[in-house]
Amino acid sequence: MDSGETAQLARLLRGQRVAALGTLRQGAPNVSLVSYLAEADFGALVLRVSRLAWHTQDMLQDARVSLVVAEPDDARADPQTLARVTLRGTAVQQPGEGAEFGRLKRAWLERFPQSAVTFELADFAFWSIAPRDARFVAGLGRTYNLSAEALRQAAN
Amino acid sequence: MDSGETAQLARLLRGQRVAALGTLRQGAPNVSLVSYLAEADFGALVLRVSRLAWHTQDMLQDARVSLVVAEPDDARADPQTLARVTLRGTAVQQPGEGAEFGRLKRAWLERFPQSAVTFELADFAFWSIAPRDARFVAGLGRTYNLSAEALRQAAN
Repeated sequence: MDSGETAQLARLLRGQRVAALGTLRQGAPNVSLVSYLAEADFGALVLRVSRLAWHTQDMLQDARVSLVVAEPDDARADPQTLARVTLRGTAVQQPGEGAEFGRLKRAWLERFPQSAVTFELADFAFWSIAPRDARFVAGLGRTYNLSAEALRQAAN
Repeated sequence: MDSGETAQLARLLRGQRVAALGTLRQGAPNVSLVSYLAEADFGALVLRVSRLAWHTQDMLQDARVSLVVAEPDDARADPQTLARVTLRGTAVQQPGEGAEFGRLKRAWLERFPQSAVTFELADFAFWSIAPRDARFVAGLGRTYNLSAEALRQAAN
């Protein structure tokens, strides 16, 4: 991965707002759309989800998840050239109070101002997914497997 | 689901070109980006994938998959209002010759002209995913669970 591709990966994770989240539902994959926020050091992706949502019920049963963040289709000739990155990791529910909650809340509201109402609802919580690894497709035939450490280096 | 939402679902499945595909990889979810084509009657989504790709290896091991097709993020205030639909089903590899192959090839090349090269490569094949059910989020708080039959009705 050259420095241009590293920058492309960082722009992708910081620039997009939604990811496709894969969870396990009765042992089979289930994919849904979630808003996410990448931590500055790419040490985790943060979600804010309702306990009433299927994906949250799934994560409470089995914390293994995968996310794909992709460049939106811009009607280019070949959609296979769209940049995307798949992360795999374990989802951990975060506390609903304390300094860390305050930090996440400020960052989340800055990114998603319309989500203020979720902070008045008891069924919403932050979840954090620390990537175990990543698979970055920079374009056609340019696929890179990254360790969590290599992903963090892309954040610099 | 009212007739406006039914039309919205049909537009979504016909208008988008890429989906996030969830497969099982060593028992955990793995999500990747794929090009897809919806059959006219929504009886199946068709993929054309390489045997070398992780998701194909996964489907050869366990055919249970899920896909999400989402409206691309258009920088609206609240990305949670983006329309999306999750399908769940079983992926079945299709023959690489015969009349049905010819039909799929014509439809695929019309949608993805840049993919012509994949018809000269032995590792590519069509896979068909007949949805067992669908979960359509038309917008905030407008979520509908659809049977395969209800999904087919949306195609009319």
